[in-house]
Amino acid sequence: MIHITFPDGAVREYEAGISGLDIAKSISEGLMRKVLAVELDGKVVDAFGAINQDAHIKFLTWDDKGGKSTFWHSSAHLMAEALQEIYPDTKFAIGPPIEKGFYYDIDLGEQKITDEDLALIEKKMKEHAANKERFSRKEVSKADAIAYFTEKQDPYKLELIDGLEDGQITFYTQGEFTDLCRGPHIPNTGYIKAIKLTNIAGAYWRGDEKNKMLTRIYGVTFPAKKDLDDYLTFLEEAKKRDHRKLGKELELFAFSEKVGAGLPLWLPNGAMLRERLQQFLQKAQIESGYLPVITPHIGNINLYKTSGHYEKYGKDSFQPIKTPHEGEEFLLKPMNCPHHCEIYKTSPKSYKDLPVRFAEFGTVYRYEQAGELHGLTRVRGFTQDDAHLFCRPDQVKDEFKKVIDLVLYVFKSLGFNEYTAQVSLRDQNDRSKYIGSESNWDIAEEAIKEAAAEKGLPTIVEYGEAAFYGPKLDFMVKDALGRSWQLGTIQVDYNLPERFELEYIDSDNTRKRPVMIHRAPFGSMERFVAVLLENCAGKLPLWLVPTQVKILPVSDKYNDYAKEVEKTLKAADVRVLIDERSEKVGRKIRDTELAKIPYMLIVGEKDVEAKTVSVRKQSAGELGAMQVSDFIQLIEKEVKEKTS
Amino acid sequence: MIHITFPDGAVREYEAGISGLDIAKSISEGLMRKVLAVELDGKVVDAFGAINQDAHIKFLTWDDKGGKSTFWHSSAHLMAEALQEIYPDTKFAIGPPIEKGFYYDIDLGEQKITDEDLALIEKKMKEHAANKERFSRKEVSKADAIAYFTEKQDPYKLELIDGLEDGQITFYTQGEFTDLCRGPHIPNTGYIKAIKLTNIAGAYWRGDEKNKMLTRIYGVTFPAKKDLDDYLTFLEEAKKRDHRKLGKELELFAFSEKVGAGLPLWLPNGAMLRERLQQFLQKAQIESGYLPVITPHIGNINLYKTSGHYEKYGKDSFQPIKTPHEGEEFLLKPMNCPHHCEIYKTSPKSYKDLPVRFAEFGTVYRYEQAGELHGLTRVRGFTQDDAHLFCRPDQVKDEFKKVIDLVLYVFKSLGFNEYTAQVSLRDQNDRSKYIGSESNWDIAEEAIKEAAAEKGLPTIVEYGEAAFYGPKLDFMVKDALGRSWQLGTIQVDYNLPERFELEYIDSDNTRKRPVMIHRAPFGSMERFVAVLLENCAGKLPLWLVPTQVKILPVSDKYNDYAKEVEKTLKAADVRVLIDERSEKVGRKIRDTELAKIPYMLIVGEKDVEAKTVSVRKQSAGELGAMQVSDFIQLIEKEVKEKTS
Repeated sequence: MIHITFPDGAVREYEAGISGLDIAKSISEGLMRKVLAVELDGKVVDAFGAINQDAHIKFLTWDDKGGKSTFWHSSAHLMAEALQEIYPDTKFAIGPPIEKGFYYDIDLGEQKITDEDLALIEKKMKEHAANKERFSRKEVSKADAIAYFTEKQDPYKLELIDGLEDGQITFYTQGEFTDLCRGPHIPNTGYIKAIKLTNIAGAYWRGDEKNKMLTRIYGVTFPAKKDLDDYLTFLEEAKKRDHRKLGKELELFAFSEKVGAGLPLWLPNGAMLRERLQQFLQKAQIESGYLPVITPHIGNINLYKTSGHYEKYGKDSFQPIKTPHEGEEFLLKPMNCPHHCEIYKTSPKSYKDLPVRFAEFGTVYRYEQAGELHGLTRVRGFTQDDAHLFCRPDQVKDEFKKVIDLVLYVFKSLGFNEYTAQVSLRDQNDRSKYIGSESNWDIAEEAIKEAAAEKGLPTIVEYGEAAFYGPKLDFMVKDALGRSWQLGTIQVDYNLPERFELEYIDSDNTRKRPVMIHRAPFGSMERFVAVLLENCAGKLPLWLVPTQVKILPVSDKYNDYAKEVEKTLKAADVRVLIDERSEKVGRKIRDTELAKIPYMLIVGEKDVEAKTVSVRKQSAGELGAMQVSDFIQLIEKEVKEKTS
Repeated sequence: MIHITFPDGAVREYEAGISGLDIAKSISEGLMRKVLAVELDGKVVDAFGAINQDAHIKFLTWDDKGGKSTFWHSSAHLMAEALQEIYPDTKFAIGPPIEKGFYYDIDLGEQKITDEDLALIEKKMKEHAANKERFSRKEVSKADAIAYFTEKQDPYKLELIDGLEDGQITFYTQGEFTDLCRGPHIPNTGYIKAIKLTNIAGAYWRGDEKNKMLTRIYGVTFPAKKDLDDYLTFLEEAKKRDHRKLGKELELFAFSEKVGAGLPLWLPNGAMLRERLQQFLQKAQIESGYLPVITPHIGNINLYKTSGHYEKYGKDSFQPIKTPHEGEEFLLKPMNCPHHCEIYKTSPKSYKDLPVRFAEFGTVYRYEQAGELHGLTRVRGFTQDDAHLFCRPDQVKDEFKKVIDLVLYVFKSLGFNEYTAQVSLRDQNDRSKYIGSESNWDIAEEAIKEAAAEKGLPTIVEYGEAAFYGPKLDFMVKDALGRSWQLGTIQVDYNLPERFELEYIDSDNTRKRPVMIHRAPFGSMERFVAVLLENCAGKLPLWLVPTQVKILPVSDKYNDYAKEVEKTLKAADVRVLIDERSEKVGRKIRDTELAKIPYMLIVGEKDVEAKTVSVRKQSAGELGAMQVSDFIQLIEKEVKEKTS
């Protein structure tokens, strides 16, 4: 008999050799049907495998990350089975699960496949799924493994086996398909109820461009048809909201090959949007006692040797900038903190001067691989809404609370109403890897937890997730599609004050090190604008949108009156355009809606006479005729209240 | 007989061999006494030398650059004569005139001289000046020249002679001192009436740090005692206004060795000042139809190969930034124009879309030798208030006029009331060295001249001073000390539109190149702030100054009332501080004046009762007691009108 411990602490006895599935069944049939894999003592394994000794068990279902990845891994095998059937000469490389779905890299020899062929593959997969083919696992000797794939003439599997140790090799089989595989897998292919192969791409064997280019087929599967439908709807919606597409349509930003990938050019609409965001935060920061500073985008390499950034970013980033003066080298700044430390040092500080809060919209540069770049969310140059707070240890909690207030004010003003805070603390079992005194860490960790609690933040505490230089609090926001984005971070730092030998004179006249807090409510202007666009689907709130109002004369006859209205609105700082084209008003309305301009003022005969405008609001429809002054009041209120 | 042509075109006949001095005398004794040298057919020569053939003559006096430099060159010889007398073993290297005065590099062997010795040297110089020692010129063979300085044991002169061709060597002698010298010189040392040796420095022979370090003595001399007095007063005043000193006192900016020389750190006071300046210009620009853009501080090296900047700045500047991806290199941007050209290209343009005006406060980086760096006026990173106007040829004049308006608005708002405009056009004798069509140049040159004339600018036209890529207009402003600063530039560019293949579709449906205009009213934020500080001696206008008002309670008893007043002022967006120290009010007033804060509000018993403040204005004294609301109105008016 063996003892199985459940997540709630309960322990039950079973006969050795029982499978996870059977244990689940002993609880309920319903549970058993949902189990895709099990976690035994922290390791994900087949739910159908035998358990021979005492263990902690956790059942993994579609709701668990481990359940999903097992499901998609098995789906890759299912696709391989279909491919083998349709293209018998296919050689198989690797077929892992990924964040959303799976892929398999295959060598089709002379054969070519196109998007049209995917339907056939999907069809075959569905047939094999309907057959509920069971996955079975087999330990194989290295010699047998080599013999099997030699017969199959699969050079990729042979190369993989070459790298494995004898005694550690396993095969998985379902239906007619056998693969070299570490597992785990779902009990049978019948769990896979909905299948979508999404696209075909090229990929080098082992990711090395010197190797052969293989065909990669991506797919995604689900345990229910409805999940796939939801997912396809989500994909379509996400595509519409893709900030790269919106950025182009709304003329917010662009990229140029000559300037370089990952280096955004902010077009006038985008630059003005970004400046409005900056001014909004700047104003809030100044009211909260921040002091703006401006520092250069490079620093002598010694600055980064002192800060440790040279060691950290050196090899994989933008390389040092040499000068005509030998030995004098600079680095593009990957962070603003070293510069701010140097500003701290320009004058002596007393305990009464603290906290000092230096804020800068500082543009930093970090090299990312070309393949990892993505719109405004992964770039090589970005502007942090950065600030560094230098305070006494006893001020950490209060500073955290103030920063939390600021972050929540930003979220509220920008329409992010769902968020959680992740508090990252030390690994409780190993405190040796952290810099800074035990007592300062204790103070800071307590301060962060208390600050989060006092501000009523929905909080997750993660031990062992702190940086080596201090604990932190990250904000995760949920967007309109339910996706999570990390925005806003607050980090304590004991490292840089030490490295830069920052000091203040305490009340007892001794020299002390200040605590440094890094924080960025937006994170970066680039990333924030991307998330903002995807969240609001390009329908920016009135206070941010490039053009707030478009005046649509119903015919050319009313252009003069339109200009009069425009002048009045401009004098009230309203961002307004006129559509003077000789188009039907229906067409003008449609184009304005496509351009995502919040308000339309339709002006015709009656309006000229009554000195009114007929107001139409995006997504809300007709608001009726009103005096221009009333309309101005209406939108001034909306701008002031920052409603979305 | 020879014919001498005067600057006014008059021609007179003289006997061959006559000197410039005698020709001057033939006009008037008064003129003769003022002549320091003459320009013969464009070449500056001794006024006492013989003229043997027809020539155009121009008399050079103290008012001419050539007159001054001859005067200071002779003064260097006079100093050398004194040095030779006092320190007979001195070896002489070189002794040229400089922009303001002269220096001589000497090798004193074991001897050391200090600032205290300068008085003795000055004294000897004055004695020799009083002797009115005549300068005489002698042509010397190379062999004789070598023999002379071998006897003198002067290795520096021997090395210089080594580089000269026989037949081109001349000596100049005055009193007991003979120097290897190309001349020219003033007639005699008696012209030098006032002498000031200003400082001693070290300098490597021939500027090469591998060579011996010599002693450099700087001096300045004048034809009248009063000129020296004025100059010393000017120096003292300039020292007080030195922006580097003011920048430190007012905590505007700082430099850090670790960040790097020439890379300013803008402290909070400076950052806010700079942002106010930027917002001021930004607002004016948006009203003038400019569109803000934001671009990265680096660009792929290909961008600068296209623009030609790589070739121009390459070797002597910050070197290319290599990346982990071989062959992919970036450059710190030395100019914003290439990025703006790429933005122009992000969408097709029609003749109706032009002009397009992209504006960016863009920070650029250019390497300067460490020795050439100076405060904020010569830096390695600076932010241009840059904009690029893309227009049709027929729009150039109108765009120029609008830019002139903007520049004059900036000057007026910042207290620069004296300025001239220099219009730089093509060399009329050689039009081959310019890029762009003849007709476009004609249009642009006419446009600039007309625009300047129509705007009533005091203008100097300089032929041959245009850049190869287009004509330009530069503004020179005079500051409160009468010094000239180049601020504000407008340049036409035919080069970049060509290199970037910029286009618009003209009304006849053909593709045309737009004309590009670069312009920067401030020039750069760094340089402008420096000039602004020196011009106003740190007494910044109310709308720009970091702290506008300081409240001085006459004793601690009134601190609460002071806080009340502070709150009211802050609510009205007034930048205000309280001096809560337990100091006498006299001391508080003095400190506030030293901090150059424009307004002091002294509050005591009477003020608390009457709810008033006693206003004292910097440089103006007491304005008496007034209601807080009246005071707010007073300063709001001053801010709005931007009076200084």
